[in-house]
Amino acid sequence: MQNSQRPSAMPIHKYRPFHEQIKVDLRDRTWPSQRITEAPRWCAVDLRDGNQALIDPMSPERKRVMFELLVSMGYKEIEVGFPSASQTDFDFVRQLIEDDLIPDDVTIQVLTQAREHLIERTYESIAGAKQAIVHLYNSTSILQRDVVFRTDKQGIIDIALEGARLCKKYEKTVPGTTVYYEYSPESYTGTELEFALDICNQVIEIFEPAPDRKVIINLPATVEMASPNVYADSIEWMSRHLNHRENIILSLHPHNDRGTAVAAAELGYMAGADRIEGCLFGNGERTGNVDLVALGINMFTQGIDPQIDFSDIDQVKRTVEYCNQLPVPERSPWAGDLVFTAFSGSHQDAIKKGFEAMEARASAEGKTVDEIEWAVPYLPIDPKDLGRSYEAVIRVNSQSGKGGVAYLLKTDHSIDLPRKLQIEFSGVVQSKTDSEGGEVTSDQIWSIFHDEYLPADDSDAKWGRFELLATQTRSDMSGEVVLDVTVRDGETQHAVTGQGNGPVAAFVEVLRGQGFDITVYDYVEHALSAGGDAQAAAYVELQVDDQRLWGVGIDGDISTASLKAIVSGVNRAIRTREPQLAAV
Amino acid sequence: MQNSQRPSAMPIHKYRPFHEQIKVDLRDRTWPSQRITEAPRWCAVDLRDGNQALIDPMSPERKRVMFELLVSMGYKEIEVGFPSASQTDFDFVRQLIEDDLIPDDVTIQVLTQAREHLIERTYESIAGAKQAIVHLYNSTSILQRDVVFRTDKQGIIDIALEGARLCKKYEKTVPGTTVYYEYSPESYTGTELEFALDICNQVIEIFEPAPDRKVIINLPATVEMASPNVYADSIEWMSRHLNHRENIILSLHPHNDRGTAVAAAELGYMAGADRIEGCLFGNGERTGNVDLVALGINMFTQGIDPQIDFSDIDQVKRTVEYCNQLPVPERSPWAGDLVFTAFSGSHQDAIKKGFEAMEARASAEGKTVDEIEWAVPYLPIDPKDLGRSYEAVIRVNSQSGKGGVAYLLKTDHSIDLPRKLQIEFSGVVQSKTDSEGGEVTSDQIWSIFHDEYLPADDSDAKWGRFELLATQTRSDMSGEVVLDVTVRDGETQHAVTGQGNGPVAAFVEVLRGQGFDITVYDYVEHALSAGGDAQAAAYVELQVDDQRLWGVGIDGDISTASLKAIVSGVNRAIRTREPQLAAV
Repeated sequence: MQNSQRPSAMPIHKYRPFHEQIKVDLRDRTWPSQRITEAPRWCAVDLRDGNQALIDPMSPERKRVMFELLVSMGYKEIEVGFPSASQTDFDFVRQLIEDDLIPDDVTIQVLTQAREHLIERTYESIAGAKQAIVHLYNSTSILQRDVVFRTDKQGIIDIALEGARLCKKYEKTVPGTTVYYEYSPESYTGTELEFALDICNQVIEIFEPAPDRKVIINLPATVEMASPNVYADSIEWMSRHLNHRENIILSLHPHNDRGTAVAAAELGYMAGADRIEGCLFGNGERTGNVDLVALGINMFTQGIDPQIDFSDIDQVKRTVEYCNQLPVPERSPWAGDLVFTAFSGSHQDAIKKGFEAMEARASAEGKTVDEIEWAVPYLPIDPKDLGRSYEAVIRVNSQSGKGGVAYLLKTDHSIDLPRKLQIEFSGVVQSKTDSEGGEVTSDQIWSIFHDEYLPADDSDAKWGRFELLATQTRSDMSGEVVLDVTVRDGETQHAVTGQGNGPVAAFVEVLRGQGFDITVYDYVEHALSAGGDAQAAAYVELQVDDQRLWGVGIDGDISTASLKAIVSGVNRAIRTREPQLAAV
Repeated sequence: MQNSQRPSAMPIHKYRPFHEQIKVDLRDRTWPSQRITEAPRWCAVDLRDGNQALIDPMSPERKRVMFELLVSMGYKEIEVGFPSASQTDFDFVRQLIEDDLIPDDVTIQVLTQAREHLIERTYESIAGAKQAIVHLYNSTSILQRDVVFRTDKQGIIDIALEGARLCKKYEKTVPGTTVYYEYSPESYTGTELEFALDICNQVIEIFEPAPDRKVIINLPATVEMASPNVYADSIEWMSRHLNHRENIILSLHPHNDRGTAVAAAELGYMAGADRIEGCLFGNGERTGNVDLVALGINMFTQGIDPQIDFSDIDQVKRTVEYCNQLPVPERSPWAGDLVFTAFSGSHQDAIKKGFEAMEARASAEGKTVDEIEWAVPYLPIDPKDLGRSYEAVIRVNSQSGKGGVAYLLKTDHSIDLPRKLQIEFSGVVQSKTDSEGGEVTSDQIWSIFHDEYLPADDSDAKWGRFELLATQTRSDMSGEVVLDVTVRDGETQHAVTGQGNGPVAAFVEVLRGQGFDITVYDYVEHALSAGGDAQAAAYVELQVDDQRLWGVGIDGDISTASLKAIVSGVNRAIRTREPQLAAV
């Protein structure tokens, strides 16, 4: 079979291979035979490198939420800003310190360029902190020397050394703070290795590393320029040649331009690094920083404790989406909505057999399934360990030729289901059509959707145990809302009052009073398309006691729509556990 | 500085490291010293592995659009379905053949399990094709043998060999078709290497590879279970040991569970593979197949012709989003909306200096900028080579503490700007506020947005050259719409008629008649939130002659809103080129 691929017209003459720009020659590399056996020191840079790459930079409120998330997950080194470059960052660092928000075992890190007024300002920002890492950088690459700084190697070294000396000088202005140092030859991947080594070693002498005050040397792939093995070679070479290596913390900072940042971090860590800087879900400049979630959970799947808590990955994801105002992609490793979903029949069958085999094995060993080794085909991890669940989506085969269920709901009814609800509803459609067989029309899909999630059009029909009859909300602008609500509960009516930071929270409190343990996991609302009546559709993902499921509400009032969605979810939960009531 | 990280409560006892499950021992590996010098044979599996992982599987129409896209980009081997498992796939393969849609130099590939009735059906599907690859697979991993097939190694070998023999038998039913073979030991990464080798070598003997009829051995990372260097080691080992290696096309099929599929493909290719299977933008089961766009453009940046045309990446992206009904993430390598965006002042400054240096160098060499080597900091590729442009987003600094421009428009005005329009509008805000300075309020942002994109509220004010006065559309359901439109053009009125597959296309035709060369690059529309009037906002990205920019329209009629958006874009284009008219 001949290869019939043909040259493209892409202008390849404009690009020179990496190895013609930078020599990395390490024939006696050892990293390919190394294995990762323990977690590196992590440094989360979401509040600096991540934040500076957002269309909507974080507000102080969003910054605080991000900081608290990182702390709660277990990150102990957190780069919190570039305080000398941004008043917002400066104010945030001051807030952290003055409001005493930094736990004793967490070290904040602040970035600074090697210029005196910026360094002075940087120390002003950290005054009063118990400890802090001052992260000094200057750009060292051939290209930046040539076109940005228009200076030679010595000029670049002078910038770095002068910066390091100024750091030591201004350190005296914060006598109550233990200061640690990090130096980054920025654009390291575009820098000749010998020069990167030279400048690092000279900076190290000024920072005077000691066993109790190690110096962090951070080697950023500011731009990812080559395949990850080349980065690993360069890290092993640097690790061998850095002076005072025993008192150096060698740190990686990969960006993801080529889509190989996770690999670069892993191979670089095998090559001798001690520390990795990155962002949750790979936020950051352009294609992002390396994804700390992928790195941590990759280790977990190898039986290595990441020393980070990923046990409620959905909560982490929602918080990050709020802070960054960017969605986490559907296929993001370990966390995307589609990652634990099997659509293929053969995959589903194998997964089912895997679960059965685990149960049999646990039973034979007199253990619970959670005590034995995880081994299920197509599921490299137990979704439960991340607070997720496995979803088997059985497709409506006769439908697949005409566009899917979610597509038709959107096109014909303006109902734009959230991704995870799409998955849940596909299962509902299948369960309703299994017995009936035949073609499923768009009208039938709408009818199934309506029957499952929405109250019957005929108001006399009792679609579920609860029904919303009247609501009234009061707010005195204190951030607390009082909700008076009249609900039908079976055959009786109750007038109940709840409080919360909004009507949804208040209503959840009301339902807790009725004996339901409810948590809202996700909430999406949108207007139905223009041209008709201005109705809104609300979707909520709920935990109702031990069940995770969705509810839907439609109403002209966006607030009422969301309450109806909660009623829908609770009624669905009751129906599945009390089948006799469902028939009413 | 001590490391204060603490053990998490993650249940690491459930997971065993990969090297304790599968031995891959290759101390004399050579791949880390290899370099990629030419494109591999590509095989695009979007229509099979990609399609089977979609919430909304492609309709026949969406399949055809995907097939034509892949062909137009230069892919010559395209897996078009699993025809024996799906009537939709079967019908699609028949349509390709019967409607003569397969170019002579393109080979379709069809997947089949090793069972007789499925193999028979597979050959029925390809009858009449000039050539086809029959892709036979069965699962070989320790886990699947144990829990799914409950058989020993010989049982698994028997399944494969019987399948291969049946393929040869049914090949006689398609005498007009040249059949090539591919065999995949599915779940290869969970299979002992010696066993994978054994089963492949036995299958190879049945398929009888020859120089003019090589056999493809595909080694899938069905689940990505270890770091990419381990996959590369295994590929080099297999490449050394496969019989008839000179007549074998060694193929990779990495999945992205650990986020390292691109690296696995690159290192595996360096380790001796000849061919790579993947999907555009990494669609596919769970976290996806390896991303063919990242792989191809990575090669391009090294001066290697990918033999694939990526020169209009936005068009590729839009088409794939339509086919898959899934968005391409904002930070997807080389293609995401944020990939060529610089928010940081120091990055913008360096980029600006890089452009200036390139111009100076080109001028000194008597060449155009496109003739010399690309060298701009933070931009590893010239965005123009992909049909994109570099965006310097200068933030409204005083705004950054209060939530960004796009966030405020959404919160306060229900205007949900597409990502690329957010970027464009941030620049508009900056240009309006540069001179004025000070705080920018949400009201001011709305006022700037209104002035820039929407007609003046006062209907007497002439906001731009064109204004929509009346429209009428007619359709006889033939797929062709006739649009009668009355537009004000400066001081005069025209009644004009256009035709197209919808009002937008028809209106573009009308404007072409007025001397504008217009292409619609993107189009998004949404209802403004419920609770007010049911207005829709439409956003269009246009090419107007040599300008790429956005227009916005708001109207109660979704069709009118989109036409107003085009008028908005055209008026903006005219304003930038004829400043004297803008003052009218």
